[in-house]
Amino acid sequence: MNHEEVKAFFSENDKLGRLLDIKLLEVGAGRAKTTMEIKPEHLNGAGIAHGGAIFTLADVAFAAACNSHGQISLAANANISFLRPAGKGALYAEAEEISLSRKLGNYSIRVTDSQGNMIAFFQGLAYRKEASLESLAN
Amino acid sequence: MNHEEVKAFFSENDKLGRLLDIKLLEVGAGRAKTTMEIKPEHLNGAGIAHGGAIFTLADVAFAAACNSHGQISLAANANISFLRPAGKGALYAEAEEISLSRKLGNYSIRVTDSQGNMIAFFQGLAYRKEASLESLAN
Amino acid sequence: MNHEEVKAFFSENDKLGRLLDIKLLEVGAGRAKTTMEIKPEHLNGAGIAHGGAIFTLADVAFAAACNSHGQISLAANANISFLRPAGKGALYAEAEEISLSRKLGNYSIRVTDSQGNMIAFFQGLAYRKEASLESLAN
Amino acid sequence: MNHEEVKAFFSENDKLGRLLDIKLLEVGAGRAKTTMEIKPEHLNGAGIAHGGAIFTLADVAFAAACNSHGQISLAANANISFLRPAGKGALYAEAEEISLSRKLGNYSIRVTDSQGNMIAFFQGLAYRKEASLESLAN
Repeated sequence: MNHEEVKAFFSENDKLGRLLDIKLLEVGAGRAKTTMEIKPEHLNGAGIAHGGAIFTLADVAFAAACNSHGQISLAANANISFLRPAGKGALYAEAEEISLSRKLGNYSIRVTDSQGNMIAFFQGLAYRKEASLESLAN
Repeated sequence: MNHEEVKAFFSENDKLGRLLDIKLLEVGAGRAKTTMEIKPEHLNGAGIAHGGAIFTLADVAFAAACNSHGQISLAANANISFLRPAGKGALYAEAEEISLSRKLGNYSIRVTDSQGNMIAFFQGLAYRKEASLESLAN
Repeated sequence: MNHEEVKAFFSENDKLGRLLDIKLLEVGAGRAKTTMEIKPEHLNGAGIAHGGAIFTLADVAFAAACNSHGQISLAANANISFLRPAGKGALYAEAEEISLSRKLGNYSIRVTDSQGNMIAFFQGLAYRKEASLESLAN
Repeated sequence: MNHEEVKAFFSENDKLGRLLDIKLLEVGAGRAKTTMEIKPEHLNGAGIAHGGAIFTLADVAFAAACNSHGQISLAANANISFLRPAGKGALYAEAEEISLSRKLGNYSIRVTDSQGNMIAFFQGLAYRKEASLESLAN
């Protein structure tokens, strides 16, 4: 699978991403970018974007980035710091590959708003399986 | 607000929890329990419950537990380890308070399936604001 | 290796633990307990126990707990929240196994002072190798 | 305090850093760099650099970076992924500021060996106090 096919695969099959109306904007080697417009159904009890919505936005970028090499990769651990509340407008998440070995990949994902303010910082550790992403697609 | 009122407040106002059909089963002093039936819209590209859905299930329990004392508390950091994939059936999250000081609360949340298998383990650090939860409800 | 042998192995071979004068008090199935008396060389620039000293105290308990089953286990990820400063006296770390599968183990480690106050909470994810701890000992 | 004074302050007063022979190489605005030569007393039971030694190397860089603005900052949470074992030679940690607000700072710290391999990735969340670092120095 090339990067466009990985992007099409996740845009189609990441069902929670679709429920939250998260768009996968770009997929490259070890990197990906997503966006989500904050809607009323993304809010928490305090009236700001829910930690779970921000996490999911970052997680979809993480999944696309760690699977971009064509090998099935699953999250083993994720850590997120919430830096600033966000109540409306678009959010963006950009995943960058920090390291890659045979079994593990490490990624950092920055979540920003449309003014470029940092909203959250996400660190993801992925476990790489033997099987190809191709095998999931069929 | 007593614990029943905290439960009613989050059941009503946690909009993402409602979108994912997460039920808040119990709220006590520093603890809470949630459940979610895994549905097709909760899945990721690999066909298992999305990290974002599992995170949100735990996060709703975390929010109710840390706000159970009646003071507004917001997540500063959350860490989650994904221990076993889950494809169907009900998931449960139970939040327990590990420590509480004037400004910080620390919580561990265990996510299990209906056979009692551990699916994920979530550690949450909350920042406690001066304002009361009451002030949000009005 | 039985639990007493695991305890003797780590007490002898965990060189950083020895440098910091960390004592391994107990090792059981999936659990371990350590202690350290705070000394001047354990402090940070603010004059309190260094995050690195508290981390190491917890990490030695984590290592003994995850290796207690006799299979070599290495930390893949660790997350620590610092809840209260500690300047003197003894600290204790207790590791508890949250889950165990063929490849992964998850542990929570509570760090307390001698009054029972929570100082830190550590969550560790270990990767289990095929080789036995026995093979390291020879 | 200017950056050279912050560097001198931590080089003198970070006692655990001194015990582990960690050198603070540089301090700038929101950034710092440390190094440590792996020695026998830094090893764990598996004969590789101890998670606690790698954590401390990163934590000293984190502390210098978050205190570089002259306000006392303490770690609230730290998350570390261990990506590759290291048995000998020099290790380096570079701290970069991801975000800074009135109360919180977020930092990522990359730990590499002298061939440039990633050994660990550390994410730190600091809580900023009102008091100045100057007040500690006197």
